[in-house]
Amino acid sequence: MHRMTPTTPIITLLTDFGERDGYVGTMKGVILDIVPHARLIDISHLVDPQDVRQAASIIAEVYHYFPPHTVHLVVVDPGVGSERRAIALKTPRGSFIAPDNGVLTLVRRREPAASAYVLNNPGYWLPEPSRTFHGRDIFSPSAAYLANGVSLDVLGTPVDDLIDLPLGEPVTAPGSIRGEVLRIDHFGNILTNITGLHWVDDHTAACHPIGLGSDPGEPVYFDAQSVRITIGRITIDSLSQTYSQVSIGQVLALIGSSGELEISINQGNAQEELHVKAGDPVTLTFKS
Amino acid sequence: MHRMTPTTPIITLLTDFGERDGYVGTMKGVILDIVPHARLIDISHLVDPQDVRQAASIIAEVYHYFPPHTVHLVVVDPGVGSERRAIALKTPRGSFIAPDNGVLTLVRRREPAASAYVLNNPGYWLPEPSRTFHGRDIFSPSAAYLANGVSLDVLGTPVDDLIDLPLGEPVTAPGSIRGEVLRIDHFGNILTNITGLHWVDDHTAACHPIGLGSDPGEPVYFDAQSVRITIGRITIDSLSQTYSQVSIGQVLALIGSSGELEISINQGNAQEELHVKAGDPVTLTFKS
Amino acid sequence: MHRMTPTTPIITLLTDFGERDGYVGTMKGVILDIVPHARLIDISHLVDPQDVRQAASIIAEVYHYFPPHTVHLVVVDPGVGSERRAIALKTPRGSFIAPDNGVLTLVRRREPAASAYVLNNPGYWLPEPSRTFHGRDIFSPSAAYLANGVSLDVLGTPVDDLIDLPLGEPVTAPGSIRGEVLRIDHFGNILTNITGLHWVDDHTAACHPIGLGSDPGEPVYFDAQSVRITIGRITIDSLSQTYSQVSIGQVLALIGSSGELEISINQGNAQEELHVKAGDPVTLTFKS
Repeated sequence: MHRMTPTTPIITLLTDFGERDGYVGTMKGVILDIVPHARLIDISHLVDPQDVRQAASIIAEVYHYFPPHTVHLVVVDPGVGSERRAIALKTPRGSFIAPDNGVLTLVRRREPAASAYVLNNPGYWLPEPSRTFHGRDIFSPSAAYLANGVSLDVLGTPVDDLIDLPLGEPVTAPGSIRGEVLRIDHFGNILTNITGLHWVDDHTAACHPIGLGSDPGEPVYFDAQSVRITIGRITIDSLSQTYSQVSIGQVLALIGSSGELEISINQGNAQEELHVKAGDPVTLTFKS
Repeated sequence: MHRMTPTTPIITLLTDFGERDGYVGTMKGVILDIVPHARLIDISHLVDPQDVRQAASIIAEVYHYFPPHTVHLVVVDPGVGSERRAIALKTPRGSFIAPDNGVLTLVRRREPAASAYVLNNPGYWLPEPSRTFHGRDIFSPSAAYLANGVSLDVLGTPVDDLIDLPLGEPVTAPGSIRGEVLRIDHFGNILTNITGLHWVDDHTAACHPIGLGSDPGEPVYFDAQSVRITIGRITIDSLSQTYSQVSIGQVLALIGSSGELEISINQGNAQEELHVKAGDPVTLTFKS
Repeated sequence: MHRMTPTTPIITLLTDFGERDGYVGTMKGVILDIVPHARLIDISHLVDPQDVRQAASIIAEVYHYFPPHTVHLVVVDPGVGSERRAIALKTPRGSFIAPDNGVLTLVRRREPAASAYVLNNPGYWLPEPSRTFHGRDIFSPSAAYLANGVSLDVLGTPVDDLIDLPLGEPVTAPGSIRGEVLRIDHFGNILTNITGLHWVDDHTAACHPIGLGSDPGEPVYFDAQSVRITIGRITIDSLSQTYSQVSIGQVLALIGSSGELEISINQGNAQEELHVKAGDPVTLTFKS
């Protein structure tokens, strides 16, 4: 397949700025004033205000689908104007511009070859940056210059002490994984931090949870009927392959589109029925 | 008028994915990884979850304003992962990628020269497609390759048995048309399925409803004062030309921007006042 | 810095059309049918329905961050279809297409060198414009042709009698400024019309309100501790430099990102706590 103009600059935006005010538009104006031919792609501006953890989860799900030359601009920034640093992260699967508050924690876990920089060259910011809108004054121009080819060694200085969020990992025991609800999506689907699940054989409906064996690194193949999922007071006795495998309105568990354990209701809203929230425990048990 | 680069690939997106999660951004990443110079245009991501009928109405109103080489990607897909097919539709006024669930019913009624395809060539999907996110794994790459010039004969196979929604048509009798509420818009305007209305003479305020005569194919010219509109318990005694022709807060009926009969309140919300919903009956009567 | 393709046409869109229907998508289709390579940037489509004043405030905050060749398309248009005119405004910092209802009042105050035009050349509209959707039929094609290089002298005729909104200016007295709440943003921050404030010295935390002296044109330097802000029943005894300078949940006042006096709660929603609304009085007093 011939791919034309592979170096069109692409910048994505993920913020908690909402969509009613002109804040996101202002950031785009700043970027286009520096790189008028950039492609600007909104990931979301409806992150709950100051919810760094939610933004960390969204950007980690999304970035690797974009071309590697993409610059991902993430501005969820409760510490704006304080001493928190502005940082950049360069990985083989994309570059990132963000405040140093842990919002890139999950990206860094997935990209061990990442290198980090502090953005400390005011020559690439807007003049006289405000203390309340670094998205406009520091992050957007930095992202624009980076997308336009300016090196991170010019925009900043290498560092290796980025702040991480204390995001829980599921606890694996022989025969079970205990994890937690990561977030609820727009449909009310309940997404968990039990990940790495893949259907490996459509015919036998076996699936392959990474680390379910007694040796965490050891894959275990098992039948979809051989697992039980517990969340709140609900127990689900098997994994489904699709939403429509159960009747409309019925609760099911399946392997979500990013390989995570997901609890849903076919054509319904699981969160409204089950009343769970981020952080609630979820257990996947291998029936002996 | 000189029009430059007329073949810039354009892809529109219409989904029920909402704007809070990263699902739409993920689809755009997949597309840009294949066609980095594509223009991506959001139609809406706030279709009510799984409301295929609503999406069918929106895409039919919008597509013909875009250049004919546009690819319209419509993903409202309650049957994702089941046996429902992924399809493409090629028309003289644009191409379409969608699940085969009737979401293109109204486009097909307006485009009799359309040809349909089943998208069954996994060489143009993401590898190992999930069972829950075909928007990302099948529809987006298919749309990207189509916009980039890959032929539908390569992406799929011609078919002629697409699924249609049972969308009602208005019933025409001598002297009246009985239709129904199609949808409520953001302003609370009530849009009906009584369409094909055009003002033909500004000076006499005559209008021309297609098919109001005793012969459905026969146009009838009439004065705006000579019709009566009934919806719920409300009767409106004439057609207005503009919202501001009545006082602020008053109910009116007019010919909407797509030629449909519309019931509104000047600078107010007609739906909140009249409490109608999609499917409710509306009658346009020719005063004898 | 090398800036490539500086003449990529850029068109921004600011409307009250919401994001659920296809109205904004339709406008973009009309534009791309004329200029397929245009960059289309959403400012907001969530302006409160028919709230011309709110839109006037948003566009005035945003436009000057975009390249000067940008065309800003503003469609908040309660008088659509009436005798109100369609206008264009050309300034050294961007061009504007809008209804003549005062929505450009604040832009015109900031751009005294602006020249205004009535868009009265139907050769650059869609054929047979509707009476209810000039955004699609008149404003979008005019913006597209303007961005594509057609002169305003061709699209319309110069005028000098544009309509202005009666937007209040703060009242300055020796030792105090009395203004009002302009709008509430997505975070619940309270933005006022007391503007022109700049920190001038980080070390002494002095700031410089334009026009606070006995001579309105005379700048007065003062310490952040030397002012008191009153809004509703709340008095705030100093200006903060950043949100995080006070404890989480505490009320503060600071100089917002556009130089305006802003009342906020650190990581909270000031509007929900203080119950103020647009138009409520705010006073900044210089402690003697």
